[in-house]
Amino acid sequence: MRIQLLALLILILPCALTTDAQQHQPLFSHHLLPVPAKLEFRTGRLAIKRSLTVAVKGYQDERLVNNIWRAVKRLEGRTELELPRIFESDAAKASLLIECQGAGATIPSLGEDESYTLEVSDTQALLRAPTVVGALRGLETFLQLLESDREGYFIPAVSIQDQPRFRWRGLMIDAARHYQPLEVIRRNLDAMAAVKLNVFHWHLTDDQGFRVESKKYPKLYSMGSDGLYYTQDEIRSVIAYARERGIRVVPEFDMPGHATSWAVGHPELASAPGPYKIERQAGIFDPTLDPTREEVYQLLDGLLGEMAELFPDEYIHIGGDENEGKQWDRNPQIQAFMKKQGIKDNHSLQAYFTLRLVRILKNRGKKVMGWDEILHPDLPKDIVVHSWRGPQSLAEAAKKGYSGVLSNGYYIDLMYPASKHYLVDPIPAESTLTEQQAAFILGGEATMWSEYVSPETIDSRIWPRTAAIAERLWSPRTVNDVDDMYRRLDRVSIQLEELGLTHERNTAVLLRRLARSPEVEPLKTLISVIEPVKQYNRGKMHPTTMLAPLTSLVDAARADPVVARNFAAMADGLLADAPRFQNNREELRHLLTCWRDVWPAMEVLIARSAMLRESEPLAKELSELGAAGLEALSYLSSGTSPTKEWREARMALLARAARPRAAVEFAIIPTIRQLILAAAEMSQLKAESAQEWQRRVKMMARENEDKRTK
Amino acid sequence: MRIQLLALLILILPCALTTDAQQHQPLFSHHLLPVPAKLEFRTGRLAIKRSLTVAVKGYQDERLVNNIWRAVKRLEGRTELELPRIFESDAAKASLLIECQGAGATIPSLGEDESYTLEVSDTQALLRAPTVVGALRGLETFLQLLESDREGYFIPAVSIQDQPRFRWRGLMIDAARHYQPLEVIRRNLDAMAAVKLNVFHWHLTDDQGFRVESKKYPKLYSMGSDGLYYTQDEIRSVIAYARERGIRVVPEFDMPGHATSWAVGHPELASAPGPYKIERQAGIFDPTLDPTREEVYQLLDGLLGEMAELFPDEYIHIGGDENEGKQWDRNPQIQAFMKKQGIKDNHSLQAYFTLRLVRILKNRGKKVMGWDEILHPDLPKDIVVHSWRGPQSLAEAAKKGYSGVLSNGYYIDLMYPASKHYLVDPIPAESTLTEQQAAFILGGEATMWSEYVSPETIDSRIWPRTAAIAERLWSPRTVNDVDDMYRRLDRVSIQLEELGLTHERNTAVLLRRLARSPEVEPLKTLISVIEPVKQYNRGKMHPTTMLAPLTSLVDAARADPVVARNFAAMADGLLADAPRFQNNREELRHLLTCWRDVWPAMEVLIARSAMLRESEPLAKELSELGAAGLEALSYLSSGTSPTKEWREARMALLARAARPRAAVEFAIIPTIRQLILAAAEMSQLKAESAQEWQRRVKMMARENEDKRTK
Repeated sequence: MRIQLLALLILILPCALTTDAQQHQPLFSHHLLPVPAKLEFRTGRLAIKRSLTVAVKGYQDERLVNNIWRAVKRLEGRTELELPRIFESDAAKASLLIECQGAGATIPSLGEDESYTLEVSDTQALLRAPTVVGALRGLETFLQLLESDREGYFIPAVSIQDQPRFRWRGLMIDAARHYQPLEVIRRNLDAMAAVKLNVFHWHLTDDQGFRVESKKYPKLYSMGSDGLYYTQDEIRSVIAYARERGIRVVPEFDMPGHATSWAVGHPELASAPGPYKIERQAGIFDPTLDPTREEVYQLLDGLLGEMAELFPDEYIHIGGDENEGKQWDRNPQIQAFMKKQGIKDNHSLQAYFTLRLVRILKNRGKKVMGWDEILHPDLPKDIVVHSWRGPQSLAEAAKKGYSGVLSNGYYIDLMYPASKHYLVDPIPAESTLTEQQAAFILGGEATMWSEYVSPETIDSRIWPRTAAIAERLWSPRTVNDVDDMYRRLDRVSIQLEELGLTHERNTAVLLRRLARSPEVEPLKTLISVIEPVKQYNRGKMHPTTMLAPLTSLVDAARADPVVARNFAAMADGLLADAPRFQNNREELRHLLTCWRDVWPAMEVLIARSAMLRESEPLAKELSELGAAGLEALSYLSSGTSPTKEWREARMALLARAARPRAAVEFAIIPTIRQLILAAAEMSQLKAESAQEWQRRVKMMARENEDKRTK
Repeated sequence: MRIQLLALLILILPCALTTDAQQHQPLFSHHLLPVPAKLEFRTGRLAIKRSLTVAVKGYQDERLVNNIWRAVKRLEGRTELELPRIFESDAAKASLLIECQGAGATIPSLGEDESYTLEVSDTQALLRAPTVVGALRGLETFLQLLESDREGYFIPAVSIQDQPRFRWRGLMIDAARHYQPLEVIRRNLDAMAAVKLNVFHWHLTDDQGFRVESKKYPKLYSMGSDGLYYTQDEIRSVIAYARERGIRVVPEFDMPGHATSWAVGHPELASAPGPYKIERQAGIFDPTLDPTREEVYQLLDGLLGEMAELFPDEYIHIGGDENEGKQWDRNPQIQAFMKKQGIKDNHSLQAYFTLRLVRILKNRGKKVMGWDEILHPDLPKDIVVHSWRGPQSLAEAAKKGYSGVLSNGYYIDLMYPASKHYLVDPIPAESTLTEQQAAFILGGEATMWSEYVSPETIDSRIWPRTAAIAERLWSPRTVNDVDDMYRRLDRVSIQLEELGLTHERNTAVLLRRLARSPEVEPLKTLISVIEPVKQYNRGKMHPTTMLAPLTSLVDAARADPVVARNFAAMADGLLADAPRFQNNREELRHLLTCWRDVWPAMEVLIARSAMLRESEPLAKELSELGAAGLEALSYLSSGTSPTKEWREARMALLARAARPRAAVEFAIIPTIRQLILAAAEMSQLKAESAQEWQRRVKMMARENEDKRTK
């Protein structure tokens, strides 16, 4: 009994130490994300009180007005103030005056003017924009400026002139691998608008599902979707929702590969005889549209015609990726066709196919976008190349005069930290492109491939990391301080949840389900230091189908865990304080103690829930890692050196703990290694400057790390 | 710097001690809620593995099949197992065999057979039901039976014969005061099905909004809803969603009072000249339909005819509550009408109005339901009286031969604990009704009035407390052990979040918004011991309009906080252990220490966020309460008696802390008082038996409490 109670006590220990952002920042630090092109803070502040009034001058329409009241409602939510709901008629008196010059494009479109200026003084915030979309971007900035202190809420006096660096700033959501209900799409559109993204790329078809209603070819979706598809009415509602937020909707119909789901209802489209079943696995599959048969183009003409009417955007994405051409190689009729037409290889056959699509879509007033592979000398210059291969391939396309959008480096499904994505630039500083060539690079897109996400977890894979990409695509190239980005990201992340996003809140739901209990503290501790394996290793380690429940430990784990990041920062602070090693010591000790004690507490939970079995070895190792860290800390504090044996045993532990299991891995290994090496290298501290010593220890600790995160 | 860091350390202390349910329960305790009518556990278990198969025998249709696969998916989510998705053809081999005798009613209807039997052995679970709805109820039971241990997942061997005690088991959601989007409605229907509720009562009109599209009278919703209404397509989709789960949808059009929103577009309906505006306040308002004019009935005939077609249920709820008749008193034409017709008072005039509605609806094949006030000798016996006045009024109606549904005692918006609702019985043990009379009492409905709920907070006001009401209405009257209900409620609450409910997860979102920071530990501690003020005191203390943001401390607070409940149980355990006072001592000390230390930690947060200003006095007092509790604990431990002055000062603190502020109050006052009185009365312990002493202390501590929670 007593033992159980003690276990219970340990069980509720809190283990999420976060660094105090305020201690690192100057007197006033803004929380704008993305950072505006030009930004100058002044002295003074505009108080936000119950009496706040809004006025509109110049052009106004329903979209602008709706957005203003939505912004007011969000402001109310963050202040508890109930604000007036009618416009102030005297513009000079308004707390917020919005001057909009015109409607802008009827439908959000590529290259629309999104600029705005915002001048905030003690008496008024003046938001000016040439278009409604520009005004919307400015409203988001206005909302992000809100601060508060003991005197109340305020917007600091500031002068902002802002416009995006890139015209194409997208988020792709793959709704094919796992269907995502409308509320998922809507809340992600809200989040996109909050960080000024402007293209929603909707990956609607793939081997695992054909997710769009076609009135002309109903078998496509009725047989290819398990009943999980978007009706045309629903799609129109999403387009309207996106338009309201100044976001384009670019649909993707992935061809000629990734087409299994098409062939379920229409086996005659494929390059080998059917029947076909909806694909349940993740990977690259054989079924490929037959580019040699006129009936295929007839159906595509009908389908794309229907889709061209449904989707108002100028661009339609036709996929084009990962066609390995296996069905083509094995089909004598296709081989004969190639011979007859003088088509020398599959890449050229795909170019033939793409060209036909380009013509079909041109007749419908649309331009074509496709993945890297569509690029071929035969193709016209008005296609957009969507690069999953890298900035290099993008630059090459630009040199040839093709427009391009970068996604390589923005694959958020690969579980890399925000910092990594953040530093990927569509036009890197070292780019040799001429200005004219560079202009072909339209921007970038974060890609949320959905092999391993459910509606419950998808937000946690997209946010907040995608906000870092949004900043890369909007803000000047020189805005690239990773620490400062993270500081602002923490605030934005909270604001995204206000909009309905679930990336933080659903973690607790997953943990409670795993534990079958409201008591999840030790599990929270464990989850706070692990992350899903990167790249496509989850599928390799833990192969599951698209029907698998996504409720495991790895689904609760998140990329780029805050606690691990703060732990690293605190350890750096400790080592920088050599040879005293006082800085952050208590916080580190607390955190490491939590980790050391996680095992007995987790044992209680594991006994109650079979879902936690796979966390057992992880919890035990976290316990060992915590103990090792505490030992290192105590060597550093006391100034005594550990034995060589100690170092070796601890390094062996690290090697053991670094192996991924249950499709997760520890995110704290390099920092623990750093502490252990610091303790082991302490005797060298006299021989080097403290700074030199610290740099060396850090380098040693990270030696193998770069390989892992590449 | 050091101080700030220490504050930070305190800041992350964990302060949610929960009692260990397992320590109070026998070797095997089920988690069924509601408890079945007959339940007998056997030895053995059906293992739930990847090889689990399902077979269906007898009648089957799409609804049954959909529900089975949904149940399988939920089972997968709770086990991480990927289960086969085709039926087993050999019934004898199936792990779960479902034998359904027939479809049941096409549309869920009053009195439909919802019974089922479930026999689980080592080799098979056999679910038998006369109707599809019965099978659905059984599937929910099957899912709730899932347990796990180190050997894996299993369903314990059991024999269940189950049917509901009452035919009408409802949840009313008021979508008029605050419009609730479709996803709120849908997820609440999911939750209802999980606890076997079968009537969704949709309060669609009120002074603050007319929320349903009428094709015949579009001004009703277009002018009366701020654009927040349900289209008829949406309503049909909700009805289909509910039908799929065996839930009836009873719409309410509240008349003749509560009708301001009707009069905005149709001022001619009201009993006084317009114009009218949508009401923004909470309360009872004058605008009332004019029962003396034929044009009013013409519109109602048209509208109700349209609604009768839209809603397939046999019943339509016409409201009828809280008509104070002020407009009638002041309208000479109405007064003349009454005189001419010999109608002696407003109640009779309303009966005249109701009777006209009864006739209109009878022509459309519908029966009428209305609140208490509609009861009048002139009305036919086939109306259903919806009692907000109490079991007494219900019994009286039953004696007169009127059917009735109880909601008094089930007003979940009043913020009472689940235990209070749980013990309210539509036919209490002491009822003097004959069996025949009792049969008129159809059941009950939890009512979620929405003056103070947003889509973000509504689930936290409904769940999990409504599950306790669901058990009252389904299970035998003798199932009434409050502690056991809470034990099972904790598990059900987790399962409801799996379905998408947000009652737990959204609390953290509200706290982070309040703190403007991810660091919310001290705020979590505070929120865990407070609850919103009860009854309608929020509106009195903190009057706001329907447009107010619902993002304050009180919105994050929840009725019946778990920590306060566990604290009370632990304190009881401590006192029961007199004179040793060992039992639970360490846990209590930990919890009280957390409370004592909440103040400096909260101070840091408050300095950063103006939204936390109103929590300042509460945090300070919690700190004092914690200190007082620790002092009491230490007197008890050491066996020394405090001075009279100590007692008096502490009692004065309690009186001070008991006052509600910021529309919240402490839920821990009686328990702290109990500890203080125990310390103060320790010297009496020798004079009485320990049990007697404990009872007396408890009684003293609760003296004023009953008044408060009544």
